[in-house]
Amino acid sequence: MSSIVYLNGEYVPRSEARISVMDRGFLFGDGIYEIIGVYNGRLFRSEQHLERLQRSLMAIKIEHQFRIEEYEQIIQELLEQNNITTENKYIYIQVTRGISTTRSHNFPKPSVKPSIFMMLDDLVRPSFAQLQKGFKAITREDSRWKDCFIKTISLLPNVLLSEEAIENDATETILIHNGYAIEGSNSNLFNVKNGVIITPPKSEHMLGGITRELIIELAQQNNLPIKENNITLNDLYSSDEIWVTSASRDIMPIVNLDDQIIANGQVGPMWQQMQTIFQGYKDAL
Amino acid sequence: MSSIVYLNGEYVPRSEARISVMDRGFLFGDGIYEIIGVYNGRLFRSEQHLERLQRSLMAIKIEHQFRIEEYEQIIQELLEQNNITTENKYIYIQVTRGISTTRSHNFPKPSVKPSIFMMLDDLVRPSFAQLQKGFKAITREDSRWKDCFIKTISLLPNVLLSEEAIENDATETILIHNGYAIEGSNSNLFNVKNGVIITPPKSEHMLGGITRELIIELAQQNNLPIKENNITLNDLYSSDEIWVTSASRDIMPIVNLDDQIIANGQVGPMWQQMQTIFQGYKDAL
Repeated sequence: MSSIVYLNGEYVPRSEARISVMDRGFLFGDGIYEIIGVYNGRLFRSEQHLERLQRSLMAIKIEHQFRIEEYEQIIQELLEQNNITTENKYIYIQVTRGISTTRSHNFPKPSVKPSIFMMLDDLVRPSFAQLQKGFKAITREDSRWKDCFIKTISLLPNVLLSEEAIENDATETILIHNGYAIEGSNSNLFNVKNGVIITPPKSEHMLGGITRELIIELAQQNNLPIKENNITLNDLYSSDEIWVTSASRDIMPIVNLDDQIIANGQVGPMWQQMQTIFQGYKDAL
Repeated sequence: MSSIVYLNGEYVPRSEARISVMDRGFLFGDGIYEIIGVYNGRLFRSEQHLERLQRSLMAIKIEHQFRIEEYEQIIQELLEQNNITTENKYIYIQVTRGISTTRSHNFPKPSVKPSIFMMLDDLVRPSFAQLQKGFKAITREDSRWKDCFIKTISLLPNVLLSEEAIENDATETILIHNGYAIEGSNSNLFNVKNGVIITPPKSEHMLGGITRELIIELAQQNNLPIKENNITLNDLYSSDEIWVTSASRDIMPIVNLDDQIIANGQVGPMWQQMQTIFQGYKDAL
């Protein structure tokens, strides 16, 4: 059975949800998105995600159409209509600049109503066995645009970078910008060295993740040494541990980078500790 | 009356043409496009455009679905169904990776059928009076991704850069990469200095336009001195003439850059000459 999605005011089966070919999301990738985890039927840090959604809209000059409470209301309606009570899912929200009459790079004048699409999708989470074994990643030069802090749907660079991981039997592609590891193609990056957790500082080149922020908070609350610092490619190779994190995949331990074994090739103790803390936080929601 | 467009095998009024929200064009900007001018009902360099379309598809690893003749057949059908015989229009072609069942950066496995959308749209051409007066442009740092040679629909960077021109009462934004002027947000760039026409050499940072190539050809055929060379921002300011060129706007003379008057602020003699040659070429089609 096709799940029920929200599209511009209507609740329709996903298989029937269609948008005009003149929507600027389809013609120009002219929009932004957000992903909110749903654990045991409960929203995970939705306020932070919805605030970032508003910041993304401002960054690309789409006038706000909905208040945060209105998004929350639609999310609740989607959870109800799809009978989500105990499952783990995620909410996907996409807002585009709306539907043009002709195709022109420039914003429609007068401005049109933004298009809003929201759906529930399955979290594809690694199994316990996979997590205990660890994952492989590759590194590539960061080919993305300069304003990576904007969570845009113009994602072709990320798509191609992410696919390179798959072509190399890996899980994620870590992006190197001017010699520094920034983040993954759709995740943030942490490494551990000599007992300290390190993550690159926020910049315009990075999409500062909500999960990344939570991990920093949880480390601080649990007295685990953590700092924001630049990470070079050589730092990465000589890490004791590497993690990639995202709202849809939590914390994934990387034990092999560019076909080089990281440390002893085993999932590390700091990851075990953080994973337990993270799981505890989610279970207590 | 809404014009007839082509969408995945069907000819439908544009106002009724709708695509699944799960199309990767809508979710990821995961596709490419092409624009072919139609003058007096005749296609302008369609073979070159369709060959570039195939190269774009290969570059983003979408398997070819149509041969060039099949695109040409649909174009003819669109011209007929919309009764285009003498008008100036352009054909827009967009191909995306197709429709996924779930949202994942990675290519669908097994691969799905690409989505193909084609429409006719109006050429918004400057009037003779506007052309004789010349246009204003601005410069901005090139914020786009590294593989600008791919004509992708992930166009948010171009959209935002192009809109900055409008906000500054200008027509186009010329992009500066590492100190060199590369091209416009949706055009190629030429300048004239001491009787020589200059255009930046092709690179991965540039979308080498079909119109750009034609201008080079026409200059050579007509013994106008032309060369490919890097152009710095200072070179631009001290130009005798600046032009931006595209399939939808031909050759536009720029007489004001970043609020600085270029040369004497008048449209230059080389532009007049090239414009006449270009118009003659089109009339002889």
